[in-house]
Amino acid sequence: MTSEENWEKIAAAKRAALAEQIPPEYRVPKDQLPPESQLDVTTWPKESGWFSPRELEITGSTASRILKQIASKEWSSEEVTRAFCKRAAAAQQLTNCLSDAFFEEAIQSAKHLDDHLQRSGKLVGPLHGLPISLKDNFNIKGRDSTVGFTSLVNKPAEYNATLVDILERLGAVRYCKTNVPTAMMIAESVNNTFGRTLNPLNRKVTSGGSSGGESALIAFGGSALGVGTDIGGSLRIPAACTGIFTLRPSFGRFTTQRCRSGLAGQEAVQSVNGPMAKTLEDITMYSKAIVDAQPWLVDPKMLPIPWRQVELKKRLKIAVLWNDNVCMPTPPVTRALTETVEKLKKAGHEIIDWDPKLHATALGLLGRMFVADGGKSVEALLAPTGEPYRPEMVQYKDAKDSGVFELWKLHTERSELQRQYLEQWMSYDGLDAVLAPTTPYASVPHGDFKYVGYTGVYNVVDYATVSFPTEITVDKAKDKPVADHKPQSDFCKAAQDSYDHELVHGLPVSLQLIAQRLEEEKVLAMTDIVLQAIKSTD
Amino acid sequence: MTSEENWEKIAAAKRAALAEQIPPEYRVPKDQLPPESQLDVTTWPKESGWFSPRELEITGSTASRILKQIASKEWSSEEVTRAFCKRAAAAQQLTNCLSDAFFEEAIQSAKHLDDHLQRSGKLVGPLHGLPISLKDNFNIKGRDSTVGFTSLVNKPAEYNATLVDILERLGAVRYCKTNVPTAMMIAESVNNTFGRTLNPLNRKVTSGGSSGGESALIAFGGSALGVGTDIGGSLRIPAACTGIFTLRPSFGRFTTQRCRSGLAGQEAVQSVNGPMAKTLEDITMYSKAIVDAQPWLVDPKMLPIPWRQVELKKRLKIAVLWNDNVCMPTPPVTRALTETVEKLKKAGHEIIDWDPKLHATALGLLGRMFVADGGKSVEALLAPTGEPYRPEMVQYKDAKDSGVFELWKLHTERSELQRQYLEQWMSYDGLDAVLAPTTPYASVPHGDFKYVGYTGVYNVVDYATVSFPTEITVDKAKDKPVADHKPQSDFCKAAQDSYDHELVHGLPVSLQLIAQRLEEEKVLAMTDIVLQAIKSTD
Repeated sequence: MTSEENWEKIAAAKRAALAEQIPPEYRVPKDQLPPESQLDVTTWPKESGWFSPRELEITGSTASRILKQIASKEWSSEEVTRAFCKRAAAAQQLTNCLSDAFFEEAIQSAKHLDDHLQRSGKLVGPLHGLPISLKDNFNIKGRDSTVGFTSLVNKPAEYNATLVDILERLGAVRYCKTNVPTAMMIAESVNNTFGRTLNPLNRKVTSGGSSGGESALIAFGGSALGVGTDIGGSLRIPAACTGIFTLRPSFGRFTTQRCRSGLAGQEAVQSVNGPMAKTLEDITMYSKAIVDAQPWLVDPKMLPIPWRQVELKKRLKIAVLWNDNVCMPTPPVTRALTETVEKLKKAGHEIIDWDPKLHATALGLLGRMFVADGGKSVEALLAPTGEPYRPEMVQYKDAKDSGVFELWKLHTERSELQRQYLEQWMSYDGLDAVLAPTTPYASVPHGDFKYVGYTGVYNVVDYATVSFPTEITVDKAKDKPVADHKPQSDFCKAAQDSYDHELVHGLPVSLQLIAQRLEEEKVLAMTDIVLQAIKSTD
Repeated sequence: MTSEENWEKIAAAKRAALAEQIPPEYRVPKDQLPPESQLDVTTWPKESGWFSPRELEITGSTASRILKQIASKEWSSEEVTRAFCKRAAAAQQLTNCLSDAFFEEAIQSAKHLDDHLQRSGKLVGPLHGLPISLKDNFNIKGRDSTVGFTSLVNKPAEYNATLVDILERLGAVRYCKTNVPTAMMIAESVNNTFGRTLNPLNRKVTSGGSSGGESALIAFGGSALGVGTDIGGSLRIPAACTGIFTLRPSFGRFTTQRCRSGLAGQEAVQSVNGPMAKTLEDITMYSKAIVDAQPWLVDPKMLPIPWRQVELKKRLKIAVLWNDNVCMPTPPVTRALTETVEKLKKAGHEIIDWDPKLHATALGLLGRMFVADGGKSVEALLAPTGEPYRPEMVQYKDAKDSGVFELWKLHTERSELQRQYLEQWMSYDGLDAVLAPTTPYASVPHGDFKYVGYTGVYNVVDYATVSFPTEITVDKAKDKPVADHKPQSDFCKAAQDSYDHELVHGLPVSLQLIAQRLEEEKVLAMTDIVLQAIKSTD
């Protein structure tokens, strides 16, 4: 067998195995599936009649409500878990969002939790009974974490990721893992093993990446709460593409220990993980639960900073990043910024402009960090099965190992950039937050997600960032392409060229709120203030 | 001029310039200098008659007392500064411990502080008026930071290190910088520019390195409080060699921003800085003052963790590292451990053994980190003037750049080691601290300091560590060389071979107390408990 046959056969077998892991009763009959031409499949669960009203109620609930219902024994964890397994199975069949499914084990875990509650009258922890979906790279003992590589198929993990252990200790039920791009280093979720994840809001556009299996699953209702990761925007981009919430914490709050990485040992910029959900309340609830579990007792890289109460000023001072001078946001994103700023002003907050003078430098550094090893980490995972580079990853193929001496220089440049960024922040006396696009797009057709600058800069400086939906959706009447657009860069040209206001009509538009490093509590509390301003009608 | 002449001329000129920086009135007349054969020169200030009783009182005081005397206007900062300038000048002439002296500026600063206090009745900060000495690598605008390289002579810094700014803001007076080894990467303080620093307690032995100019200065009484740095033991080794206190904090508490590094951009293990002084009280006072200054507002790498009050258990659980199985401590160090453990047991503390199973691995990793760039950083600083490698740095000359891909693998190995180390710590249920040798030696003859394993392992895991004198001194009668020593390694053989119980007789012996990462407050409080146990006579 040539190596080319090899990787394709491995991938085909893995996909077939995954399809088999969906129990027969959760396989949607072909004639009940929506037609391929149906772009928005989020309406399908209700319309299809395939779910019971109770299943719809459960899978339509927030994580916080589910926890209350289980705690009060209105719902059993088993019932909740079964409902989410069924809806996740449908999500997989409609959007190809999963990389693993282990529903029977999940149901057994749920039963044990129900028994425990019955017997002892006590919850095992703050996530008692809640099914939580996990991005593919969270190691679970005995299960694959391929991060898209065929060479990692059938190489089950020998241990749990530390976060997986913590979630279990807090009472969460794990039931599936979600698809990612190769090495988690593409802003869409596509790889040679599982193929491409579709956006359930519009299957012609991407659900983003690299946590785009997770965002598709949650947007479809197949999970109330999931965990993704972010090294250049991988939580925030998929959250924005599907109109859900996420927190990208600074490194040191939520453990990343013992997870699979596409670029293992790369530390010039640190990967972090965080929750994805349909409400800010769920994101906050999860964040507090994880920090309250004191991850620093098991992961030496975590910081012994307990969850903190924050007191916000009544009048927030917010700087707006309208345009990073590299890639101008597409019209709906600029409109979302404009309308949000108006509402914030009406609510009495102080709005100033953020000068993006350091952003292009930050992005240049980020790009160099990812390929500093000359793409050898990726090559080492492609070579064993002869798997080809995906076209989105050509920079890894073309890269040269810079050597450690050059990497040390890069570190020095990055530290200086971080220093300057903080100095700039502090120069806006009393600044609380930056409001920025999460991406230049609402979403884009598959293959067109090219620019991660709006997210990536905050990875370089490691600031706490929330991506949130603004309640504004693309309006093809209001958000027409700019007629005489003068591109700022090739990225800018590509963003405007790929902008199809008819295609993205109706998609939610998200923004980012950014606080300083390790201000997770503050950025969550401030997002709540921003949401209040958005919701207030005067 | 050939490059060989070049570096030697630069060095000679720099040494001459430094000698000129000592004002004539602070130059000890030749006939008042102690003879070269006098090994312990710490007695000289009192014996020589060169200092007034008031100068002796001031320079014999702790930093905490000096601050109180200045605050209550018993002493002026000017008077205190003049006294320390004079004694530092003597220290330089007797031990070659300085790399820079700027006494006139210091006296002017002190006058301004005195004026401010007179005028406003207020202290500018918690270090008001206190002269603080700084290791050579702290950048001060307009002054050199050569870290021993002739190529960096007459390349004045364009900015202050962030800590220098903070110290100024807190009211400290800077008056001198102290000598280091080349690139700060030798455990003694010797370089081709300034030469070798001697130990004032015994000029035939080293004051340690790389903060060995600082330790010599403080041990001589030329500074009440100084700041050094530590990446493999560079605070603790010199503190131990001279019988003073230091705290090696975890990375993230005291800012290291904008300092000169010998291995700029090296981050696999992080350099930190910390205070050196004759009392634990001074170390604690300084540490609180720095953290209270909120360095995270100016240095993005600092952690927003305020100074914390700690409540200690009445009965501490302490694990003892008797021997790391690489290099057995010399007899006085083992005796200091034994006697300290006895006193701790008598004081009611629980003592167990620490298993050093991970130590050899940790040290192997540390060695690889330092030379990962193939020694190019050092070479780049030697080459411009044709300066030769010092013999202690042959590993930098011989190294090859491993490439970034290999460095990433090294990071992964280090992270796993850190995880295992924490797991081991937590396995000793309720462990509070580890008690360990700081070095295998009290001190050693110049050139014989070979083993940094007892300190370096805590750099790799980044734990908070205090080195403290035990009140035990080497006793040539009690601490005879081991007759039938079976070396555990070449390091071990070298340590026992160089052990000269006659030479080191009378030198203080220090130990380390180690707490977990970011437990600076706890390790300081626990050291106080250990000192109480040592002092208690029953």
